[in-house]
Amino acid sequence: MSKENKGVCFAKGFTAGAAHAGIKEGSTKDDLAIIYSSTPCNAAAVYTTNVVKAAPLKVTKEHLSNGRAQAIIINSGNANAAAMNGELHAIETAQKVAEVLGLKPEDVLVASTGVIGQELNVDAILKTLPKIELSNENSEAANLAIMTTDTKTKTCGMSFELNGKECHIGGICKGSGMIHPNMGTMLAFITTDAAISSEMLQKALKANVRTTFNRISVDGDTSTNDMVIVLANGQAENEEIISEGKEYKQFFFALHQVMECLAIQIAADGEGASRLITCTVSGAKTEDQAETLARSVVSSSLTKAAMFGRDANWGRVICAMGYSGADFDPDHVDIAFGSAKGEIVLCKDGRETKADDDVAYEILGEDAIDILITLHEGNERATCWGCDLTYDYVTINKDYRT
Amino acid sequence: MSKENKGVCFAKGFTAGAAHAGIKEGSTKDDLAIIYSSTPCNAAAVYTTNVVKAAPLKVTKEHLSNGRAQAIIINSGNANAAAMNGELHAIETAQKVAEVLGLKPEDVLVASTGVIGQELNVDAILKTLPKIELSNENSEAANLAIMTTDTKTKTCGMSFELNGKECHIGGICKGSGMIHPNMGTMLAFITTDAAISSEMLQKALKANVRTTFNRISVDGDTSTNDMVIVLANGQAENEEIISEGKEYKQFFFALHQVMECLAIQIAADGEGASRLITCTVSGAKTEDQAETLARSVVSSSLTKAAMFGRDANWGRVICAMGYSGADFDPDHVDIAFGSAKGEIVLCKDGRETKADDDVAYEILGEDAIDILITLHEGNERATCWGCDLTYDYVTINKDYRT
Repeated sequence: MSKENKGVCFAKGFTAGAAHAGIKEGSTKDDLAIIYSSTPCNAAAVYTTNVVKAAPLKVTKEHLSNGRAQAIIINSGNANAAAMNGELHAIETAQKVAEVLGLKPEDVLVASTGVIGQELNVDAILKTLPKIELSNENSEAANLAIMTTDTKTKTCGMSFELNGKECHIGGICKGSGMIHPNMGTMLAFITTDAAISSEMLQKALKANVRTTFNRISVDGDTSTNDMVIVLANGQAENEEIISEGKEYKQFFFALHQVMECLAIQIAADGEGASRLITCTVSGAKTEDQAETLARSVVSSSLTKAAMFGRDANWGRVICAMGYSGADFDPDHVDIAFGSAKGEIVLCKDGRETKADDDVAYEILGEDAIDILITLHEGNERATCWGCDLTYDYVTINKDYRT
Repeated sequence: MSKENKGVCFAKGFTAGAAHAGIKEGSTKDDLAIIYSSTPCNAAAVYTTNVVKAAPLKVTKEHLSNGRAQAIIINSGNANAAAMNGELHAIETAQKVAEVLGLKPEDVLVASTGVIGQELNVDAILKTLPKIELSNENSEAANLAIMTTDTKTKTCGMSFELNGKECHIGGICKGSGMIHPNMGTMLAFITTDAAISSEMLQKALKANVRTTFNRISVDGDTSTNDMVIVLANGQAENEEIISEGKEYKQFFFALHQVMECLAIQIAADGEGASRLITCTVSGAKTEDQAETLARSVVSSSLTKAAMFGRDANWGRVICAMGYSGADFDPDHVDIAFGSAKGEIVLCKDGRETKADDDVAYEILGEDAIDILITLHEGNERATCWGCDLTYDYVTINKDYRT
């Protein structure tokens, strides 16, 4: 298996394109992207659990009710959530894409990201759509177009074999702020040429969302627009996966790798972040227990601020575990911090080890920090990803709209 | 009714004292406080729900098992949580106070606040305790001694009548960071000369914690040391309240006023805070629904950062409502922002009103901001309090231990 960086254009038959429509006043970057398959796809999606659901999400859900799709249109600069004429504008957008590409409107999925509560400039979108040029070199351009406060594009690709046929799976995503997914998640678009039924694709996507995108947090805010979509066009010509056999497992694993790789990039590029924090809880009674504890640690503002300051404040880690809602015995917890510079155990059986603070400070200077927690209660484990809390998070968010 | 500022010394028979023990290296402020009643008290307490419970909390719980107490010893500079010999040191502290004041150790309650995970310097405490002078002028001194990153003392007092007898109730508290109480809460100490049974006192305290201390949030982190204690020495000579009659209601109301007044001061003095945020959700089906929505809004990092930047970003408010876990109809929500400078409706029936951003900016410049949400679903309401997210929160917390 090898990973490639052609993102949504890595799998056979997929192209992408981007353009500048001027959706957000004053912004000159591309803000419109299309992902397209030359043949119809089986498709699956997972959405935000936020009660406030953006209009494009409702339209996408309806268009996906038959498990089929062929194109995705995405805009940044406006979330089209709690916005005037939201569904109308999302439908108009899908219709225009269908017209331009010669598809049925229900085969076009719609996604948006940006400010909540303002009416979408749909005229700018409709005018710009016909100008978008599709090519299999444009994954990066599409990736740039869907970014908001992201500082880096986020892409991943992987090839693997099914019944002797070479298959590909790749994706792009955007994150940055309002990242604390629950079931659904920020925007991620994944394409594959593997042949797999809509039902099995949905099953694989849902299970993998739980262990990847739902295990990251930037600021504890779950967005109104979170959405992960997978398109599978079957152009790899493997025998279609329709049940849970060996091929499903292979596909599942490849999908997991791509989704985890994208999720980690979102956590690392959280708004204002200077460090990726990876928290692994092991020795747990259940995976749920481990996940709840790890998520609470990477979501704690106090732990995140301490990581920014390179302060090995394990007291805040055990405190965040304590209010997570998961039960555990605090008197048997071990906590270590690690990075490329080494590892240091700061807490053994719930008490300080009197480890050297200077060594800890050196370890915490790296870009990627591990918080390693052992419960000594069982054999289950889970990893969650987050980032530190910095001055830049406040700078970015104190006047995001203006 | 009048409010006074004598805090824990406002009620008859109560004195307080403070001293510097040097618990946290390098700190020169007072870090030890005693609150004392000249006669035995009925007492009640509510504690943190954090699974990691500080040692003093365990000792206090045991000492309170008979519903009686006469003194409280509090230290700042060290939380004595997840610390070596934690319970031993808490017990030694109670014993020393008992010896100095001529009490039984089980009539002494213990509370701590400060860094988690370091062994308490109990020798410094034991040496300093005998030097503490008690006086009814010392509530403010005790208040200063229990502060950590608090920038202001927090005190409240109120007098009222029960059966023609003048009663007093007063309190002090500390908050600042790690404030997101759940059942129990940060440190608050309330004293009254009203006569009331331990059972009724516990009942009144618990009910009022729900609508006061449990409705504030600074950073979403629930501490290991949260504790609210009420001592009632009966020196007002009213007939002891032993059931839910008219006098209980009067006492309950007075206690509520004092607790709400203290809670709001904690929210306003949250770490780094420049503004108090008061979020009221009305028109709700149930008080629980209103409370869950209001708490989610004051806890949202994105809303808090927007308030710091005076950005009337109501989209973040409705988004935080959406992921709160409470059900509601987003298409019937109204959202307004208010302050001493006036009020402005930004969202009507879940859509923008296109209100003037400059007017909103003026309103959001004040120290105390109201977020007023109406659901149009029923007649229940709830208010929660929080503060904005500023650069100073990051500054304070990136290296709190050092």
